[in-house]
Order: sequence, then C-alpha cells, then structure tokens
Amino acid sequence: MQFNQTGAPDVLQIVDVTVSAPKANEVQIQMQALGLNRAEMMYREGAYVIEPVFPATMGYEGAGVVTAVGENVREFKAGDKVSVIPSFMFTEYGTYGEIVNMPVHAVVKHPENLTMEQATASWMMFVTAYGGLIEFGNVQAGDFVVLNAATSSVGLAAIQIAKMQGATVIALSRTHAKGDVLLEKGADFVVTTQEDDITAKLLEISGGKGVNLVFDPVGGKEAAKIINAMAQDGRYIIYGALSYDDIAVPVFPILGKHLAVRGYELFEITTVPEKLAQAKQFVFDGLASGQLKPEIDKIFAFDEMVQAHEYMASNAQMGKILVKI
Amino acid sequence: MQFNQTGAPDVLQIVDVTVSAPKANEVQIQMQALGLNRAEMMYREGAYVIEPVFPATMGYEGAGVVTAVGENVREFKAGDKVSVIPSFMFTEYGTYGEIVNMPVHAVVKHPENLTMEQATASWMMFVTAYGGLIEFGNVQAGDFVVLNAATSSVGLAAIQIAKMQGATVIALSRTHAKGDVLLEKGADFVVTTQEDDITAKLLEISGGKGVNLVFDPVGGKEAAKIINAMAQDGRYIIYGALSYDDIAVPVFPILGKHLAVRGYELFEITTVPEKLAQAKQFVFDGLASGQLKPEIDKIFAFDEMVQAHEYMASNAQMGKILVKI
Repeated sequence: MQFNQTGAPDVLQIVDVTVSAPKANEVQIQMQALGLNRAEMMYREGAYVIEPVFPATMGYEGAGVVTAVGENVREFKAGDKVSVIPSFMFTEYGTYGEIVNMPVHAVVKHPENLTMEQATASWMMFVTAYGGLIEFGNVQAGDFVVLNAATSSVGLAAIQIAKMQGATVIALSRTHAKGDVLLEKGADFVVTTQEDDITAKLLEISGGKGVNLVFDPVGGKEAAKIINAMAQDGRYIIYGALSYDDIAVPVFPILGKHLAVRGYELFEITTVPEKLAQAKQFVFDGLASGQLKPEIDKIFAFDEMVQAHEYMASNAQMGKILVKI
Repeated sequence: MQFNQTGAPDVLQIVDVTVSAPKANEVQIQMQALGLNRAEMMYREGAYVIEPVFPATMGYEGAGVVTAVGENVREFKAGDKVSVIPSFMFTEYGTYGEIVNMPVHAVVKHPENLTMEQATASWMMFVTAYGGLIEFGNVQAGDFVVLNAATSSVGLAAIQIAKMQGATVIALSRTHAKGDVLLEKGADFVVTTQEDDITAKLLEISGGKGVNLVFDPVGGKEAAKIINAMAQDGRYIIYGALSYDDIAVPVFPILGKHLAVRGYELFEITTVPEKLAQAKQFVFDGLASGQLKPEIDKIFAFDEMVQAHEYMASNAQMGKILVKI
C-alpha cells in the first residue's frame, strides 16, 4: 500500500512490489492484519512530525507469520506468529503490506490465546497506556486516576490497566451518551466535560482529597479544571495535542501540591530496550491471563483501506479499526 | 518580636516574654542574627498559606549560640554555634527573638569560616536552590540552565550551585540594568524579559539545542517563551507564584520533547529527613570550601525590624536582608 502525494484517503493505492530479503536484524512477516492509527492519517495528509518520501508507505501495527529472518536474528524463526510494536519511522518501515520487513526490536510473539486481529489491536493501546500509567505515571493501588478522551483505544486500554493496578478510574467524556459505554468498559465513574463542573465532581468523587494521576491526550484550557482537583504529589501525563491551545496550569496547586505535568510519547518506551522489554512482558502477561482484552471496533478488507481511513476520520469508533489481509 | 494583628510593618513590636525551657527534641538558641523572607511579609499581612494565631511571632532563618537542649538531643550542646533551616510552621516556632527554642531537625552547625551573619544568610538560599537544581532538577555538567528572577537570594544561590555543577547559566532579568550585576555574580549570559526575544536568545545561546533546566519563581504567560526554547527531556521547576496567571505550557514542545513541569517548595527537602541530611551536607561542604558564598544585601538592628520589613517591600535588595541582635 503506497501513496505518491499527500492528501485525502484516496491517495492510497495497492501496488505490486518485490520485497527484498530481510537484512541483518530484520524479520520478514506475512501480514494477516493491520491496525490503523491517527498518526497514519496525519502522515498521509503531510501533517505528521516526519515528511513522507515518495513512493511512501506506512503502518505502525499488525500481526502475521514470520517467513524469513535476517542475520543476527535468533529470537524468531519462520512460522512464528508475531505482532508489531510501533518503534520505527515510516520512512524506514511500515506494516501496510502483504509481506513486510520489520526491525527485530519491533517484533514480539503474542500469547497463543489471541487471534491475529486481537494481537494486532493489542500492542499500541496497551504499551502506550502502560508507559503513561505505570512507567511515568507511577499508578498505585487506591489512586484516583482521571482518563480524558477515554473512548479512544488507548483510553480503553488505560481503564483496564488502571483497574488491574487497583486504582479507581474516573473517565472523562464530552457527553453522557458515550459515558455510559465507559462504565460498561470498566470505568468506576464518568464525568462529562460539557455537562458537569469538572473540578467539583472530581473532588466529590475523591472524597475531597483530589485525584492522583491524570492521563490526558487533550490538554488546553480545560486542563486547569482538572489540575484544580489534583491531590498532593499528583502526576499529570499529557500524551496528545487534541487541543492546540497552551496547557493552562494554575500556579497555586502545582506549587502547593508539588504536582508534575509531563509530556509522554509511546516512543519513550519502545526505543529504550530495557523499558520496551518490561512493557512487552507486562502486556504479554496481561493478555495471556485475560486481564487485558484488546478492543476492536471494526474490521475492513485490505482493498477497503480508503474506506477504513475515511471511517477513522469520522471519529465514530470506540476501539481499534483493523484491516484484514 | 510579636504582632497582634495583621497589617503593615509597624504591627511588629518588641515585647518582653519569658522563654520556656526547651522541650524534648528542642534546642534553645541565643540568636545573634536573623534573615528576612518574603513569607514573613505575607504572614504579617495575613496573606500566607497559614493564618497567624495572636500574639504571633515568626522567622525562618537565623544563627546564634546554643544555650540549652531538651531531652533526646544529642547532636548539640550549650556553646555550639548553629544556624536555623526553615522546616517548621510559624504557628509553632520562629526565629524573631533574642532567645528562641527550635526543633532539633531545623538546627545545623555551620562551618567555622562563616560569621553569624553569613551563616544566617546561607541555608534558605542554598538549600532552596539545591532542591530545585539538584534533587528535583537533576542538573548535569554541560546543561544550559535558565534562572528567572535571578536577582533574588535564591536566584544568586542558584547561579553558584549551577556553576559548581558545571552548567552554563543564563540569568533572566527584567532589564539590562540589573543584568550586568548578574554577570558579576557568575551568570554566563543575561537575557532580559522586557527587551529581548526570549525564545530566540535562549536558542541562540544554546546553539539551537535549547535549554535543559529552568528554575523559575515567576510562571505565568511568559513561561511559554522559555518552554518554546527547551531541549529534549528538559525540566521546568516552578518555585514561586510571582505571576498569579496560569502557567502557559505549549503542547508541542512538552509532548515532542518529553518535558516535565514541576512545582517545588523548600519544605519538600526540609521535612524529609534523608533529603534534608543530603542537603545539609552539600551546603555545608560548599560553604566550608568557599565554593558557595552567601549574598548579604543590608544589615539592620533588631529594633529597626519595621524599617527592615519596609526595605524588603521596596524590592531594591540583591541578596539577603539581615537583622543583627
């Protein structure tokens, strides 16, 4: 799957290419499913942190069967069922193909109890939430954890991981309509950003103590309402820029309560070998035990990639959009 | 020195009182010098984090000679020359007196090479800067460190500690007038907040890489100009609220550069025994070796306390205002 110019979803085309043999430290995979990411929408439009080099391909997620391995690769062999963890640049690698080469650090064996679709949907969402909540957020049993924009696949993963660690989860949603589904997905409370007084509700739910950890892809002016309801030594992890406005940080709570506001990207986990190894183990164990369950919204065929991208742009999904090969 | 109502400096009065014997874990000190703090101005005005209980006294800093010790105190004996580290509440203890009792954790022996005035001026400024730069700011040799409002005593202390750790110091000052003095005090560069393009200057000085650590008692909207010039993994330590506006944190740098913005108060060091012990050792060694030099602006007599408070309110000082007893 390639594109030769940036633009709308229909710039994407299936093209027949010969895939080279895997080089040293590469694994060749026959892909069976791909996962879609907002990063790919932005890259296709020319609005991502890196510019496409044409003919361009992309794709951060997927799962399939190993067909060959390059020199130095000892962890995998032909026939292994594996999935891909985002930890490379689209200018170097991408999962949007029937046969692709991947750097060995981006490849992981998934538990036997998962289908290829479930495996595809697992790593981005759970590793991202793991890094934000556990590695950098230091979530503890008994913490009150606020998840903003919780209906995204990362938000749903964060609900599961926070609950697994013994925290109380407060999901923020724009309206009560999507909010009810978040309770079904495991959130203990739902606060709506358009209908509720956020600060008052968070203080009420936490018994006046305030919330300990916030995991937020939005930021902007609304952040102040959450920060005003944070507890002593609270951590605010920002992992997206859904609002382009400056994050408003009220000075008296950050000072008097010793709060920390930190930017976080998945690549801080996936490009650091020790952190990646810990994350793989945590997510593997959670998936194998059934405590972590990937959330799949809809599955498209490979030749419906244009429609899949259009569907993602509609923002109607809750959970992962997949493409089956 | 007491006051019976909040208000202007002239609410302060010298009153004859009988000081009780030191209780368990207390040290009685005959004070020879006191240091003034902005916290005391606010407390006197009724604008501090805690409300005065009348008749009220106060004072975070001072030095003198031990006259008696309470039960369980083994570290000090009568005749020891000691100073006071702020680590208590004004409703419990205060240094504004000829004879005062202090909790033992707030008492420290200072190096022999310091006068009582120098000892008085040392602990607040150096321990505060130590906590912000070293304990929480993790300053490294080669770092570019931005010090905002650098003409305060803590700012001057931070210049010395950052230089001692091998960092390059960029001091921010409102105008070039005070800026020249900062170069004399050890800053490598001065950028003025009213006359320079802050972001452009910081990037230019750091060779385009950005600054690694910011130690700032101001915050507010101007923070965005500094944050836009920060380097990968940069740390922004906010330790005051000279601006009451929300701190403006631009989302793309905090996210893409994995920045952390953290509120910090001296009490995070002085109320945690292990951290306080490390801070005492660091500052003691720096003072004893002469690498750290306390900055004294002006010395008043005890019965000139009203004038001393008025002078502090004028903001004309650079370094510590002291009162000699």
